[in-house]
Amino acid sequence: MIRLLGFIAGALTVGSFIPQVVRTFRTRHTRDLSFGMFALLVTSGVLWLLYGLVRHDWPVVATNVGMVTLTGILLAAKVRFK
Amino acid sequence: MIRLLGFIAGALTVGSFIPQVVRTFRTRHTRDLSFGMFALLVTSGVLWLLYGLVRHDWPVVATNVGMVTLTGILLAAKVRFK
Repeated sequence: MIRLLGFIAGALTVGSFIPQVVRTFRTRHTRDLSFGMFALLVTSGVLWLLYGLVRHDWPVVATNVGMVTLTGILLAAKVRFK
Repeated sequence: MIRLLGFIAGALTVGSFIPQVVRTFRTRHTRDLSFGMFALLVTSGVLWLLYGLVRHDWPVVATNVGMVTLTGILLAAKVRFK
């Protein structure tokens, strides 16, 4: 039950980056996006992944696999598209 | 030890939104920011907060108090500044 809440929260967290990914690849403009933000999100995603793995907290693990993937894509877009 | 990792990950997660908040209030431009992203981040932050409270997972609780605050500010900026 509480695990279900965790998976729902995680799906929304990861899902929250999808509109930003769509917008970024549609407009190919990233001027208003912060490089620092996405660099930190990739780093913190990796640390949360470790935290979740050590605690066997699978909602945290699943969420952060998604986070590292999407924030990594946005960081690459920021570097690429300007 | 693992709790320390969680707090470090949480500080980076919340900290990752600070450059975006600074940039947004400096430029007062939010065209490239996705409304949907920040609306979902506020929602998922509230759910993670509940998850952390039920599990007594304090790094998760502290992180999501910060997340709801900062993503709420950015959502308000998106509505306000256009």
